[in-house]
Amino acid sequence: MKNFKLVLCYEGTRYKGWQRQGNTAGTLQEKLETLLSRMLDQPIELAASGRTDAGVHARRQVCSFRAETEKSCEELLKEIRRHLPEDIGAISVEIVPPRFHARLSCTGKTYVYRIWNSDAPNVFQRRTMLQIAEPLDLNAMEQAAALLCGRHDYLAFSSLKNSKKSTVREIRSIEISKDGDLLSLSFTGDGFLYNMVRILAGTLLEVGKGNLSPEEMPVILSSRNRKNAGPTAPAHGLMLWDVSYDA
Amino acid sequence: MKNFKLVLCYEGTRYKGWQRQGNTAGTLQEKLETLLSRMLDQPIELAASGRTDAGVHARRQVCSFRAETEKSCEELLKEIRRHLPEDIGAISVEIVPPRFHARLSCTGKTYVYRIWNSDAPNVFQRRTMLQIAEPLDLNAMEQAAALLCGRHDYLAFSSLKNSKKSTVREIRSIEISKDGDLLSLSFTGDGFLYNMVRILAGTLLEVGKGNLSPEEMPVILSSRNRKNAGPTAPAHGLMLWDVSYDA
Repeated sequence: MKNFKLVLCYEGTRYKGWQRQGNTAGTLQEKLETLLSRMLDQPIELAASGRTDAGVHARRQVCSFRAETEKSCEELLKEIRRHLPEDIGAISVEIVPPRFHARLSCTGKTYVYRIWNSDAPNVFQRRTMLQIAEPLDLNAMEQAAALLCGRHDYLAFSSLKNSKKSTVREIRSIEISKDGDLLSLSFTGDGFLYNMVRILAGTLLEVGKGNLSPEEMPVILSSRNRKNAGPTAPAHGLMLWDVSYDA
Repeated sequence: MKNFKLVLCYEGTRYKGWQRQGNTAGTLQEKLETLLSRMLDQPIELAASGRTDAGVHARRQVCSFRAETEKSCEELLKEIRRHLPEDIGAISVEIVPPRFHARLSCTGKTYVYRIWNSDAPNVFQRRTMLQIAEPLDLNAMEQAAALLCGRHDYLAFSSLKNSKKSTVREIRSIEISKDGDLLSLSFTGDGFLYNMVRILAGTLLEVGKGNLSPEEMPVILSSRNRKNAGPTAPAHGLMLWDVSYDA
């Protein structure tokens, strides 16, 4: 039995998110597992670094699976590419030590939320950026971002109902950068709760619009109440940017 | 009667090119003229700097039209944006002197042909870049590009049957630039013949692959025979990048 690491990218527009949902068609996991199982003529279970919601994209999603096969990584990569639809790309396939697991071994993730901040539409990136016409106060957003970093209970920034598991996470950095009309909010942390990045982005955008002030961030955090945070930003602006593992 | 300049961008994927074709639906000109005629309650004829082929995109296409209206440019822009589909964007509307005509006044155009030069697909830009997995000899391409610039009869690089009009054009520059896996071929000239940029791109790619040598460029030009040039590169890699007018 070999253990494989498969790196993918995908435009999430057409999909019902990463995670298989019973027999429902249209999730990325189901699509990929069906493909790999057929290709390798054995049932394949595919682990990913994390789920992405319906409509969320991945620039680099890391997956792993075990299989009994004589095929080389190069052959596998070619065959996977030949069968994938054009909105899913296979970046690499390699053999990894038996203990490697895409989700359990993952030590950090970066998500980027991208905003096209102009009243003129960007037709070429409309599926992967949220357009906001009104000007945003980037200074205020940066102040708020700094207050949201660190090790906190992020329950207020998640769509979880009372979770029994810990809702404490560490956000290592939130970087806000502007390149022309493109505004990128880059979140790096050890892991994120359900909808957490989209709610963080939605909250920072409320700060940018002047509807919330940076000083309210610690108050929202300690309230542990979803109602106090901003709205969940639309899925299509979000991209799983990169995933890290200890060397 | 006022004369308006309208700047557009569009993803050409769904359209049968710019130019209206009788009563056939699906061209950009037909779409825009129908919209403007309804909005302004009078028949509107829309001139563009040049036609783009079916499937070709525009980052900045300049158009002009005459209309009798009391609406301000700002109102017009808002209304146009409200009615355009999401793959066409209106960048600006302004009033210009009566003599301005988007096609006749145009003094130069830049087209960019974009290649994703990697065996790993780019799912996010797949509609606007041509993927080529094999490595390309950029030095040879640059040499060939230099030999294709200048004032020449470009009949060999067009899909025109024996044209009665002049097929002499001036290409001011062909710039080849690489940014990671993205290879851009940027063509600037006073005007281009039918399919000319796509045939130039297809020919330069043959040079990059080693199937043609730079020295053959002058021979192809002087042959005035389409069969000697390379293939017409696919439409989806081409974008009308910018259009210039004398101040």
